[in-house]
Amino acid sequence: MFERCQTARIADCADELRDAALDDDLAYAITEGLTTEIGPRLAGTEAEARARAWAIERLRALGFSNVRTEPFPLRTWMRGEEKAEITAPFPQPLVLTALGNSAATPAEGLEGEVVYFATLADLEAEPDANVAGRIVFVDHAMTRTQDGSQYGAYGAARRSGPALASRKGAAAILIRSIGTDYHRNPHTGSTVFPEGVAPIPAAALSIPDAEQLERVVERGQPVRVRLTLTPRDLGMRESGNVIAEVPGSDRNAGMVLVACHLDSWDIGTGAFDDAAGCGIVAAAAKRILDAGRPRRTIRILWAGAEEVGVFGGRAYFDAHRGERHDAAAESDFGADRVWRLRTGFTGTAEPINIRLAAALAPLGIAYAPGRATGGADVGPVIAAGTPGIDLNQDGTRYFDLHHTPDDTLDKIDATQLRQNVAAWTAMLAIVADAEEEIRSDSATN
Amino acid sequence: MFERCQTARIADCADELRDAALDDDLAYAITEGLTTEIGPRLAGTEAEARARAWAIERLRALGFSNVRTEPFPLRTWMRGEEKAEITAPFPQPLVLTALGNSAATPAEGLEGEVVYFATLADLEAEPDANVAGRIVFVDHAMTRTQDGSQYGAYGAARRSGPALASRKGAAAILIRSIGTDYHRNPHTGSTVFPEGVAPIPAAALSIPDAEQLERVVERGQPVRVRLTLTPRDLGMRESGNVIAEVPGSDRNAGMVLVACHLDSWDIGTGAFDDAAGCGIVAAAAKRILDAGRPRRTIRILWAGAEEVGVFGGRAYFDAHRGERHDAAAESDFGADRVWRLRTGFTGTAEPINIRLAAALAPLGIAYAPGRATGGADVGPVIAAGTPGIDLNQDGTRYFDLHHTPDDTLDKIDATQLRQNVAAWTAMLAIVADAEEEIRSDSATN
Repeated sequence: MFERCQTARIADCADELRDAALDDDLAYAITEGLTTEIGPRLAGTEAEARARAWAIERLRALGFSNVRTEPFPLRTWMRGEEKAEITAPFPQPLVLTALGNSAATPAEGLEGEVVYFATLADLEAEPDANVAGRIVFVDHAMTRTQDGSQYGAYGAARRSGPALASRKGAAAILIRSIGTDYHRNPHTGSTVFPEGVAPIPAAALSIPDAEQLERVVERGQPVRVRLTLTPRDLGMRESGNVIAEVPGSDRNAGMVLVACHLDSWDIGTGAFDDAAGCGIVAAAAKRILDAGRPRRTIRILWAGAEEVGVFGGRAYFDAHRGERHDAAAESDFGADRVWRLRTGFTGTAEPINIRLAAALAPLGIAYAPGRATGGADVGPVIAAGTPGIDLNQDGTRYFDLHHTPDDTLDKIDATQLRQNVAAWTAMLAIVADAEEEIRSDSATN
Repeated sequence: MFERCQTARIADCADELRDAALDDDLAYAITEGLTTEIGPRLAGTEAEARARAWAIERLRALGFSNVRTEPFPLRTWMRGEEKAEITAPFPQPLVLTALGNSAATPAEGLEGEVVYFATLADLEAEPDANVAGRIVFVDHAMTRTQDGSQYGAYGAARRSGPALASRKGAAAILIRSIGTDYHRNPHTGSTVFPEGVAPIPAAALSIPDAEQLERVVERGQPVRVRLTLTPRDLGMRESGNVIAEVPGSDRNAGMVLVACHLDSWDIGTGAFDDAAGCGIVAAAAKRILDAGRPRRTIRILWAGAEEVGVFGGRAYFDAHRGERHDAAAESDFGADRVWRLRTGFTGTAEPINIRLAAALAPLGIAYAPGRATGGADVGPVIAAGTPGIDLNQDGTRYFDLHHTPDDTLDKIDATQLRQNVAAWTAMLAIVADAEEEIRSDSATN
């Protein structure tokens, strides 16, 4: 079927490669293997190291070139025990999970009065005296969107809420999980305590628990909670990126960087976030590898330590900023179908957009104007001037699963996963093999 | 609207009472109050005692007569710590929950090799030598049904699987949760170790975890699991039934018994199972109370200790078998819409079926031939000869939630809950006020 790609240009085979990829099994096999044989792989831990070893073996067996690990040091936080209960007026347990970088409570727990805030802005506006020594509870109202656009706004409760509560003297903070589901599976994620702000215990309640606590608060009596969190700072450990390549025929052409992240949160098996992304980019690259030789080298980056602060993406950028990247893309928004294409191709590269739009339209993917923003791990490369390519996935159910125990293999829809592989395959065939000079600036980054 | 019921027969108002009940708020308020102000209420614990006190206050405030507690002693089991991990070949945590009556492992856990069985029958057929000292894993394939009919067959893995594994010398048993969801919320429930069978540690894996363990087993290497369960037998404690009545006008007519259970499993807040049932029967009875005086007394039974072995239902039967029950019904299958009516009315009582079928048809409820079986708590009363009435609820999603942490208030669909109240109201108006002699046997039980 692809024989002519051995002699003709890969780019001319984009449609056939795309359609064949709708039968792909490799992306699922990688997702299944990584989530089953490694399972959770928190950045900096021994499990993440096993994931790198697994990745190296898998990527070498697939025939990629220059398969290697690029290690970097990482300050490592590890979850401990976590439990909570309302002690008054209606004693009962609450389900929650510590946020990454949370401080520990005493081993026997910490009890305090709950002070309720409907929004982060309400917490900010509250006089410190009403917060000091109490357990802050920040509720909010994230709802479902296809593009995940609510994450930016509502995610602030998790990212900066704990530091704000600390500055105001709070003993601890509970937030409503940044999520859209109604299961007793809380959503973890990193929080940031800037230099000079003392970390405090910080946890996310599952959404049913947040609504329960809200109802209890609404009854009007003082509400007390006992909270036990025993995470530990393990100090400096090792994380690392895994890299593999499909060699291009033109050493002077830039590279196409395709990324995902190999690490996951510890409470799920990281199927949606982001084993599937690693499966998608590797399966698409493998199809190009098998079809012939594209003009540009395709570099696969399975980044380490994304969840805990995009350390892999930054380490990659620091190590490779001197190399020419012609395009960069990341798959890190689940495994549901791609619905939108955006790129950063302008000027001499603009014709590529037309070919991409045509090749992706049969998959139900709409070309949208506006600059591609890329995923977190390729963010530094794109920020430095490399054109990005977004193959945006349907995020309607993404925040049902994101950073929860529920992020497991059974959530992967194999048909939608294949549509992703088809889209990435067509994109790589067109972009990696484009005759245009993509970067007229002859920049290297 | 119901003025004529003050003078005319309640039974003549059944249609109006039914339609008015479609605006009911009481069933939801009871469900919300019990799950919020008490939360989990495991049989025999202090939380169940608080639930009884709450119930007495609520039922008295509603104006019911003879509101009282009938206590009984209960051997009480309480959950402890519970955790598990695959230690080889692919180390990772597993999510599970102890089954009621599970034995404890040593505090530091118990490690052993996993021996896999696709079904309980496969475990039964296995030579004891292959099971002895190992950790049995019983998988199975429960699927979704509207009538919950798979629970009988697949529930055996939970009810009798642990005793079977113990007889064969197993160190412990893990079962796939008896459920139909794909969340990391395992399904608890009681297991039974008959006299002479030594209790062993017994737990249910969430369905994603069961499938994960199955995949790991399928890889073909020896699989080892470390299991820590620390439940305790608290010895004899107190449980109790709560009873309330709508007095009838005819002291010689039998009673209509309407039941639910007040206790719940400890890992959810028991909204679907069975706060909603208590809300439904009380709300329907309250509507009859407000409408006038039915011929027969309606007795509400909020039973204790159902989940752990139907102890409340048996205690009720033992205490009240000398009284005449003309009919008995229970709401204990969630809060989704009633779809089927079955009764035990025969002989002189047969015309009641026609009136019930006509009154319930506008709610989308089909009359089905076949004897009503009743719920667990009215089982002994029905077994002794009292006609049962089944208002069967749609159980399509019941086993997504049953005995899990996910059984919380947010799962209640207020519109479907109101349809239940309407059905129970119409049923009570017709049955409690029927002119027919329901029991020609003049039996008392």
